[in-house]
Amino acid sequence: MDKYFMDRVTVRNFSDREVDAQLLRDMLEAAAHAPTNGNMQLYSVVITRDPMRKSKLTPTHFNQPAAVGANVLVTFCADFNRFVKWCEVSDAKPGYDNFQSFMSAVFDTVILAQQFCTIAELQGLGTCYLGTTAYNAPQIAEILELPSRVVPVITVALGYPGGESPKSDRIPAAGFIHEEVYKDYSDEDIKMIYAGKEAREDSRRFIEENGKQTLAQVFTDVRYPKETNEVFSKVYLDFIRKQGFGIS
Amino acid sequence: MDKYFMDRVTVRNFSDREVDAQLLRDMLEAAAHAPTNGNMQLYSVVITRDPMRKSKLTPTHFNQPAAVGANVLVTFCADFNRFVKWCEVSDAKPGYDNFQSFMSAVFDTVILAQQFCTIAELQGLGTCYLGTTAYNAPQIAEILELPSRVVPVITVALGYPGGESPKSDRIPAAGFIHEEVYKDYSDEDIKMIYAGKEAREDSRRFIEENGKQTLAQVFTDVRYPKETNEVFSKVYLDFIRKQGFGIS
Repeated sequence: MDKYFMDRVTVRNFSDREVDAQLLRDMLEAAAHAPTNGNMQLYSVVITRDPMRKSKLTPTHFNQPAAVGANVLVTFCADFNRFVKWCEVSDAKPGYDNFQSFMSAVFDTVILAQQFCTIAELQGLGTCYLGTTAYNAPQIAEILELPSRVVPVITVALGYPGGESPKSDRIPAAGFIHEEVYKDYSDEDIKMIYAGKEAREDSRRFIEENGKQTLAQVFTDVRYPKETNEVFSKVYLDFIRKQGFGIS
Repeated sequence: MDKYFMDRVTVRNFSDREVDAQLLRDMLEAAAHAPTNGNMQLYSVVITRDPMRKSKLTPTHFNQPAAVGANVLVTFCADFNRFVKWCEVSDAKPGYDNFQSFMSAVFDTVILAQQFCTIAELQGLGTCYLGTTAYNAPQIAEILELPSRVVPVITVALGYPGGESPKSDRIPAAGFIHEEVYKDYSDEDIKMIYAGKEAREDSRRFIEENGKQTLAQVFTDVRYPKETNEVFSKVYLDFIRKQGFGIS
């Protein structure tokens, strides 16, 4: 198996080297050979390179260093606009204003984004996903002038690495693989699965820096607290509906 | 750029050759080094190899030849069960029973699935996504014994190719790439983007076989009709809520 897959890292620290515009388009073209639902290609990609526009966009990603330092931001959007317009010029009645169609477009979009990241990393580029795209979708849509039926899903911060990046830990594979049926986790299973993560030096530092007792509390109280999740759930749902996908 | 990415094909016709169980686990372990939101790894994977269980599962995929002929079915599930249990044994109060958390888990899951497909294809295996997973999620969850907070998202039919597979066409990359802002499509743009697809021999055959006038009508009237999309929207939404993710 290609060692790249075991060794890949997420890059948050970029050099000033520019990403060639043609290379970027070629990588996106290659990525589009990834699978897509019924070959509908239910996505669009918006490239942000212009410094003025980029400086409008980075606050929607909470000015994360990866977003600010990236040479280019590539926003991957679920897109039924193009397909519906094709139906309309083809005397066909589209019925895609619903949750299942939205989810199909999300799957297509994330598959494209991941294929793009793999291609870019194999070219020596660094990538970092910005999950904030699903938080501040309304503002991002305004900046990128997204029409109805288009919803931003995930953004890739792209550039050449500015130094070494640490490799992230993962739970043991046996912790997420189930044979034949889902084997639910006992408390002992859970402790074993997360023991490696909890023992890490950086985990202990996170706990201390945030004044917490356990690593899980850093997630629940600081990084992904309930209140924030609920606010952004409402924002994203409202926006998806506004873009024309009924969810009832 | 690695030619593989431009040349890859989806495989629906599998040989009888078995997929080695250790190879499958190794590929999943490598795939798990793909990016994941906050390193939470919000997914589980259920492997279906036993012929009895597989014969229960294939009807939920409408007995597609790719599902029936595959050596193994690999169901990728959005999973907040493991993470919430970790919070609970760690004296942390989880707040992940909402739409934004569900979507984060979906992104993690699809990223993992796509990385897995790339790794498998580079190993000479064939893959085919079964989008039907999001249609018949309740039945799949029952067969795979998925607990609360776990939702099946997408399935990969996996095996060794049983012959040549045709390469799918794609729209021109300029048709989905937007520079700086989304440039909405005129009718002329749309006609140009879809002209290549409409001119294909197989497209004309689809139109004729289905007694339609245009290729788009094959999608709207036969393959993905409004009524079906709406039925399965309700089924999936109800199931996601039942599994513990509030959507209001």
